[in-house]
Amino acid sequence: MSVPVERTKSGFHQRRWVALSGGVGGAKLSLGLARILGDRLTVIVNTGDDFEHLGLHISPDVDTAIYTLAGLVNPETGWGRRDETWTFMSAIAQLGGPTWFKLGDADLGMHVERTHRLRAGESLTAFCADACRRFGIAACVIPMSDDRVRTVVDTDRGTLAFQEYFVREQCQPTVRSIRFHGAEGARPSAPVLAALADPELGGIVVCPSNPFLSIDPLLAIPGLRDAVLASGVPVIAVTPIIAGRAVKGPAAKIMRELGLEPDAVSISGHYRGLIDGFVLDACDTGQERQIGVPTLVVNTLMRTLDDKIELARACLGFCERLVARPGRAQAHARAKAGS
Amino acid sequence: MSVPVERTKSGFHQRRWVALSGGVGGAKLSLGLARILGDRLTVIVNTGDDFEHLGLHISPDVDTAIYTLAGLVNPETGWGRRDETWTFMSAIAQLGGPTWFKLGDADLGMHVERTHRLRAGESLTAFCADACRRFGIAACVIPMSDDRVRTVVDTDRGTLAFQEYFVREQCQPTVRSIRFHGAEGARPSAPVLAALADPELGGIVVCPSNPFLSIDPLLAIPGLRDAVLASGVPVIAVTPIIAGRAVKGPAAKIMRELGLEPDAVSISGHYRGLIDGFVLDACDTGQERQIGVPTLVVNTLMRTLDDKIELARACLGFCERLVARPGRAQAHARAKAGS
Repeated sequence: MSVPVERTKSGFHQRRWVALSGGVGGAKLSLGLARILGDRLTVIVNTGDDFEHLGLHISPDVDTAIYTLAGLVNPETGWGRRDETWTFMSAIAQLGGPTWFKLGDADLGMHVERTHRLRAGESLTAFCADACRRFGIAACVIPMSDDRVRTVVDTDRGTLAFQEYFVREQCQPTVRSIRFHGAEGARPSAPVLAALADPELGGIVVCPSNPFLSIDPLLAIPGLRDAVLASGVPVIAVTPIIAGRAVKGPAAKIMRELGLEPDAVSISGHYRGLIDGFVLDACDTGQERQIGVPTLVVNTLMRTLDDKIELARACLGFCERLVARPGRAQAHARAKAGS
Repeated sequence: MSVPVERTKSGFHQRRWVALSGGVGGAKLSLGLARILGDRLTVIVNTGDDFEHLGLHISPDVDTAIYTLAGLVNPETGWGRRDETWTFMSAIAQLGGPTWFKLGDADLGMHVERTHRLRAGESLTAFCADACRRFGIAACVIPMSDDRVRTVVDTDRGTLAFQEYFVREQCQPTVRSIRFHGAEGARPSAPVLAALADPELGGIVVCPSNPFLSIDPLLAIPGLRDAVLASGVPVIAVTPIIAGRAVKGPAAKIMRELGLEPDAVSISGHYRGLIDGFVLDACDTGQERQIGVPTLVVNTLMRTLDDKIELARACLGFCERLVARPGRAQAHARAKAGS
């Protein structure tokens, strides 16, 4: 059941693929995948970072994915828009409004239009689909859920909403635990479930995003986690840690604070039971022996578009050579039957 | 009662003054008044033009007044901000959002911050007071009411919300009548009533704004109209029509459509019973004989800051020489007693 016969016959262009993604790192690999797969790619994006700011619904990871796939992202930062202007923020500062979260003028178009449409009853999923179409993105970028999930970080300075921790406090507080408010009751949208149950699905790629802040929120949604486990296709994860350091963001710092060694072994261990293969960086050659699933050792640092496409192609090829652990689906079925 | 003894002894700097204003024309005279009077000026501004757009509370006339008095207004248009950028509108267009109402990036700061604070329970009056303080405006700019009043235009193309008529349809439809939804039940805010009942009040200047679209909404609020009538100080109006043409906007067109001659005589007639004096343009010399109240004939076209200050000084001096019609307050008192 886990490996349909036709899957081994055809190349990865003939099947559909799912990426699970957070912000910048995930968006980079998603872009590589999208360049190869076009409309055969669905990127399911974390919305635990979403928040209301100045009365606007901000979806940082979804926007990073969309801007990146549309070729509109700021190449300096990996988030926000290129050729951005900042006149709005100056006006907000003049009026004594909050300035700790920077909203560019073009970026603001997304937030205002999204907030307006959400208030009018449109779903975040529908808005994303429309934005992708208008930005000329062939791939499908969808939020993990239309229900409200909010990442909350318990720290030595108290409990902080994600953006308070991440942007306002610049990840300085020491993390004690991370929770995902609303995740237990959240449902994946129909397109998320359809993508994961697609009979043409070739595999699922967990992008090199922060496992604790960006991927765990997706997996904390029971229906989404179950759909990944039940998919019957190989699931691989790509390390966000290279040589003991996060390519971007606080992953390594958080891992130390949670008592974990910031390395590929710990990351792969975090995904134990979920993944059938793990992609680690060539810098970490040697660690593959301590990883309990098949590994691929490649360059995972994505500086150029070619880097992104090359890593994406390696991931797809790696997935092709794997089989989904039969135990995973069975264990899942048993759990379902027993519940 | 109508002319306190000390009023004739002191210059207009020693008293307080109120201006009733719409958008661009009213803001220009308000700026002239503000340069002379500083914090002794209260500008009560029309909010019948206010509307919700893209989920934001837009107050066009209030913003024009604030930007003008802050020295931030776009000198080309008389509304919006100088040194504006338009990146937001490009993004909205990319997303298929509405583009008929242009929102500059800096201007948007005002709308987003205002909407956010109104949703948090702050009044429009309080927001304006804070904005004035932050923009360094000594005068007090306040909306006519914190209650919702919406100007609606009945036209040959149906009933249109004000901004639909004014901006989207560019005043093309033929006006049949104008109504102010909510005005009958609206209350002036405490600062509006305090300004009009101030024992130091020297006079009330109806700015050269469109009487039908910009001043009538204020007067349609019973409590505001009553407070003007009961003020016991001279009320003067400045013509927005020069040589049969509106300096800006559709006043002349609307007057013809309503069966009125677009001239100073008609404008002064529209304010009959309210005003004690009328200011008409030197171009219209001769019409003063048909105007039933004392007149002042001066240059009313305000091109430069000096023009604005000169007209403002002339208006204040004119007010000084007038006495409030005793009949106005008495008629008002009789009406009150009879009601």
